[in-house]
Amino acid sequence: MTYCVAMCLSDGLVFASDSRTNAGVDHIATFKKLHVFSRNADRVLVLQSAGNLATTQSVISLLSARIQAEQEPNLMQAHSMYDAATLVGQTLQEVVQRDSRAQQSGSTVNFGCNLLLGGQIHGEPHRLFHIYPEGNFIEATQDTPYFQIGESKYGKPIIDRVLRQDTPLEQAMCCALVSIDSTLRSNLSVGMPLDVMLYRANSFDASGQRRITEDDPWFSTIRKAWSEGLQNTFRQLPPFAL
Amino acid sequence: MTYCVAMCLSDGLVFASDSRTNAGVDHIATFKKLHVFSRNADRVLVLQSAGNLATTQSVISLLSARIQAEQEPNLMQAHSMYDAATLVGQTLQEVVQRDSRAQQSGSTVNFGCNLLLGGQIHGEPHRLFHIYPEGNFIEATQDTPYFQIGESKYGKPIIDRVLRQDTPLEQAMCCALVSIDSTLRSNLSVGMPLDVMLYRANSFDASGQRRITEDDPWFSTIRKAWSEGLQNTFRQLPPFAL
Repeated sequence: MTYCVAMCLSDGLVFASDSRTNAGVDHIATFKKLHVFSRNADRVLVLQSAGNLATTQSVISLLSARIQAEQEPNLMQAHSMYDAATLVGQTLQEVVQRDSRAQQSGSTVNFGCNLLLGGQIHGEPHRLFHIYPEGNFIEATQDTPYFQIGESKYGKPIIDRVLRQDTPLEQAMCCALVSIDSTLRSNLSVGMPLDVMLYRANSFDASGQRRITEDDPWFSTIRKAWSEGLQNTFRQLPPFAL
Repeated sequence: MTYCVAMCLSDGLVFASDSRTNAGVDHIATFKKLHVFSRNADRVLVLQSAGNLATTQSVISLLSARIQAEQEPNLMQAHSMYDAATLVGQTLQEVVQRDSRAQQSGSTVNFGCNLLLGGQIHGEPHRLFHIYPEGNFIEATQDTPYFQIGESKYGKPIIDRVLRQDTPLEQAMCCALVSIDSTLRSNLSVGMPLDVMLYRANSFDASGQRRITEDDPWFSTIRKAWSEGLQNTFRQLPPFAL
């Protein structure tokens, strides 16, 4: 599995992904699941992926190659985030159809993957989409300002409790990291290092990326402070009485 | 779905269950999932269930009827918790085999269920078992003093963070309730009221049961205190910096 979360807030976008890929517990590897496509002062697009690694890598490779070759349509030509999501969905369909066509009958390999696409294209606000394995997609709104893909359940309660549309980006990143940390502790299929990105609305600046390793001082502080805060809160709860 | 959690600690046992049963989102009902079998000064057995409701009700009915009819073997005769778990597992196999035999070919109904059996029989310490749909089972140990069945992922991180074998029972019950509250907020298939039970080791006292409804003052205090504690902790985290 994998765990990726993306948030579309008033001030911009927050992305965080783990990097573990596994095919069974004895075949574990590290792959980055957060990919950025940008062009100065015009667009920043961030793609996160969970699911079949062959499929997600092919989707990223095709999207990149078509930008390089200036082949139409490509992500640098998309007029809106909606058009970009459509293009990513179509590329995903193309890969899944190509790979599953050769599948032996009776095979149960799942070629699907889920993608999160967030970013901003000049002329419209920043937006966030969840693209399903079938290539169709939904968009985050004020009511539901975040999406998760992969092993999402462990880390959902904390986001549901603290995230609001007007949460500052730096605090929202804390929330995403605590959500991932909760998942890391309870599920082996999610692992370090983490890749994060913070995008400030209307900045068209893709430099807010960082890789967080096991010994990252900020992440260690967050983990410790969160754990201690939870335990303090827990100790102060009124104990059960019949 | 459902969510049940049981903890086997130094001081005794803690059980908490929700009461929602659903077959699709438009077929929701309330059923108690925590059942107690006891005999004064000799044994207290607590059974929690998640899965096919027809199966779990049949298992409970057969176990009860066989005690009433003094039919051998039954739960009041079991010499140990291990024997009791074996008997519950066999009864589960019996029901699943009976019901699935009449299944039409191609039908995908899942007759299985998961059960948690905890308690104490005179002559040995209190013990806790997780009985699988196949009727086999595992026992809680010092390393893993708790089991969950049903919609378990949302509520796992908080237990993993705060529960220890020597946590006092009244505090452990808080932990179980916070775990269920986190699940209630993030998943529609888990719902109020809750059924809880606290069993103190060597007491052979089954009176520590309570039903917790939406307007329960203690549960409301817990929910509020936990939510505020989390948000305070969150606000004090050092914000992200690149």
